[in-house]
Amino acid sequence: MKETLDFISSNTATYISELQEFLRIPSISNSSEHTQEMQRCAKFVAEKLTTAGMNRVEIYQTEGHPVVYGEWLGAPGKPTVLIYGHYDVQPVDPIELWDSQPFDPVIKDGKIYARGATDDKGQVYTHIKAVESLFKTLGSLPLNVKFVIEGEEEIGSGNLEPFVKNNKDLLKCDTVVISDTALYAPGLPTITYGLRGLAYCEVEVVGPDRDLHSGSYGGAVANPINVLAKMISQLHDAKGKITIPHFYDTVVKLTAKERAAIKTLKFSDKAFGKEIGLTELSGEAGFSTLERLWARPTLDCNGIFGGFTGKGAKTVIPSKATAKISMRLVPGQDPKKVMSDFAKHIKNIAPKTVKVTVHQLHSGNPVLTPLDSSATVAASKAMEKAFGKKTVFIREGGSIPIVHTFAKLLKAPVVLMGFGLNNENLHSPNEHFNLKHFELGIKSSALFMKEFAGSK
Amino acid sequence: MKETLDFISSNTATYISELQEFLRIPSISNSSEHTQEMQRCAKFVAEKLTTAGMNRVEIYQTEGHPVVYGEWLGAPGKPTVLIYGHYDVQPVDPIELWDSQPFDPVIKDGKIYARGATDDKGQVYTHIKAVESLFKTLGSLPLNVKFVIEGEEEIGSGNLEPFVKNNKDLLKCDTVVISDTALYAPGLPTITYGLRGLAYCEVEVVGPDRDLHSGSYGGAVANPINVLAKMISQLHDAKGKITIPHFYDTVVKLTAKERAAIKTLKFSDKAFGKEIGLTELSGEAGFSTLERLWARPTLDCNGIFGGFTGKGAKTVIPSKATAKISMRLVPGQDPKKVMSDFAKHIKNIAPKTVKVTVHQLHSGNPVLTPLDSSATVAASKAMEKAFGKKTVFIREGGSIPIVHTFAKLLKAPVVLMGFGLNNENLHSPNEHFNLKHFELGIKSSALFMKEFAGSK
Repeated sequence: MKETLDFISSNTATYISELQEFLRIPSISNSSEHTQEMQRCAKFVAEKLTTAGMNRVEIYQTEGHPVVYGEWLGAPGKPTVLIYGHYDVQPVDPIELWDSQPFDPVIKDGKIYARGATDDKGQVYTHIKAVESLFKTLGSLPLNVKFVIEGEEEIGSGNLEPFVKNNKDLLKCDTVVISDTALYAPGLPTITYGLRGLAYCEVEVVGPDRDLHSGSYGGAVANPINVLAKMISQLHDAKGKITIPHFYDTVVKLTAKERAAIKTLKFSDKAFGKEIGLTELSGEAGFSTLERLWARPTLDCNGIFGGFTGKGAKTVIPSKATAKISMRLVPGQDPKKVMSDFAKHIKNIAPKTVKVTVHQLHSGNPVLTPLDSSATVAASKAMEKAFGKKTVFIREGGSIPIVHTFAKLLKAPVVLMGFGLNNENLHSPNEHFNLKHFELGIKSSALFMKEFAGSK
Repeated sequence: MKETLDFISSNTATYISELQEFLRIPSISNSSEHTQEMQRCAKFVAEKLTTAGMNRVEIYQTEGHPVVYGEWLGAPGKPTVLIYGHYDVQPVDPIELWDSQPFDPVIKDGKIYARGATDDKGQVYTHIKAVESLFKTLGSLPLNVKFVIEGEEEIGSGNLEPFVKNNKDLLKCDTVVISDTALYAPGLPTITYGLRGLAYCEVEVVGPDRDLHSGSYGGAVANPINVLAKMISQLHDAKGKITIPHFYDTVVKLTAKERAAIKTLKFSDKAFGKEIGLTELSGEAGFSTLERLWARPTLDCNGIFGGFTGKGAKTVIPSKATAKISMRLVPGQDPKKVMSDFAKHIKNIAPKTVKVTVHQLHSGNPVLTPLDSSATVAASKAMEKAFGKKTVFIREGGSIPIVHTFAKLLKAPVVLMGFGLNNENLHSPNEHFNLKHFELGIKSSALFMKEFAGSK
């Protein structure tokens, strides 16, 4: 593999300039204004898959944004790896907090700054370039490769599940590799084996049938903002536990071995807080920060609005107030059950003075991937070789709902081999990606294909 | 006065069409986009004062929107009445809830619908037309008249206090008459003798130094929305009492006589609730609805915002969350003291995990006007004659900060002789004004001038 790894080293600069092109496309999936850009981005990905050597590349239109598929099946008898990633990105607001334009990538101190840099364009591109490097140096791939690169990950992958369901034969594989997670620390090879799930909804509290003058009505009617605030405050108890009945009933606890492994990671609360401008962390009592992030369910308001939100003062008692509330779930919890328990509870704690409606927005299952699959073992070895350090196994607090879908529908073990870092501002202003990890990611992917090819 | 009253009856239709012109000017004072319209509106008022017979009319520019002044001092030895009103209006949002355009007045079932119809253009216009009718029928006025019509009432009258301070001689008078309050019931002559004050601020809660991914950070950090919600929920106790220390210390309680007078008004909670789509009212325990509205201080969130407020889902823990919070104050309370107690308290109850800042936005003193002034007695008699019913005396939950300023600076008793109704959607979509009350208002004003002229 020396030739391939050297080739990757020599060509990283070129690959970075291609990545810049990729990042220039504003592929924001949650905005109807960007529909054309989503199509343009899908086309870009398809072209790059073709250039990389895939001999069948297709753009599958869906009811939403397209899925890009690519395959090279020229290694009969060898295993097949399906590589999943997404070309869509988060919105850019608050735009005023970006130091550079989100879709005009800037390289500074070895990092590339742009929306989507680490989530997920930079990461998914490592595999495309790994395949290309293998073709250019070895003339072929050591195993069969399929790519599924979608455009709706940031909005819940609503059209990917039907796509996978309808194309089980097309997508048949021995493992699914996903690079949409983070290294535990810079330069430290990491495989993520657990992800939290998600249940996300909007809660609307309606009081009077119109906005009222707070002078003429203040003191006589329940104010929907005050009511909503009180309801939100009741969702946690004094120890940070979520108060929804049955919420913790089926939570799978960490094993003693996992707790011990977490301890060896030497996580620093202080450093973690400093990174985001905090001197105090917060959360459920009785668990370390990493345990809370990786293995405990949470409830957060992701947005709230009601009444007058412009500049200055308006003395209004609003007719309604709305909160976006989501729960991160852990293995053992079922998003549907949690959502229905939440809806029941929030209506239970609402006073009779208001009407409450709950609109479910999206959800995802929590996941534990098998640590002993041959793909995980191969990935661990590959990363170790690329990075020159022993691979660590961690969980992650975020959700990739499609992991559960793949595992369930394709019955193939999933490997989460990520190259990002959690402090690379994914979903925030000034998102970036460490370009050293981009290069090591390409190498890890190439080495994985070689390793996994030998496992069958 | 019969001739004058008949003249008013015959000319009401003309006066209504002039009022429509007035209402067509979008004089929204809190929007910098409407600066030119504010000037146009001031000019309109000045022209109408001239037409009405004022022989000195001036538009005083301020640092904000202009004050329109008019006077006729042709009755030496007779008392002087200063009539105050405002030509500015509230914003129109939510615009989609209006049945007609807010600045295209529509008359339906004897009511005129437009922003500013009842608050305060329709009401202030009654006095301009009263003066005009007196001139047209009697050739002169029975007393001296001054008008001060400002353009910043809806944004706190920030430039009026300096104007009054700097023009004490110009504004010297025996009473100040203001029509910016409501009749207790349709057709029932009403004088308001108490107004609540106001202390309005914006509270900002800042946690992490940027928006965070709720997967990567959920469970480890305090969420500013959840924290703000909890803080808001702590501002009232279980009985609806406000928890700010010393908040009630100086509140002047209702007298037994006032409580008894309130009881005779036969207020219906059910009817009051029905009018605004509510089956349940809410508020401080131990007080009737009218007592809570008129004589008890309150605290309401007028707006709240934080995190993702667009359509759909974004899994963010926001860096900050903001609430607009105002308190209605009653006689005995000092807005400055209340504001400082509030700021201290809200910082006290904030957890160490966030930073809290309080920006004061505006404030106004609570007011009790003297029931025994000769102006109040004259106004009571005038309304009784115009309406044909005995005048009732009430308080009002809203604030007119300038009432306190006039009483203090001009040392003249204020009379609140309003012709609106509380359910005329002031500050809400579909604001309107009952045109019968418009006519009775013009007559009341003319009769008042005659009555009050005889008192000196």
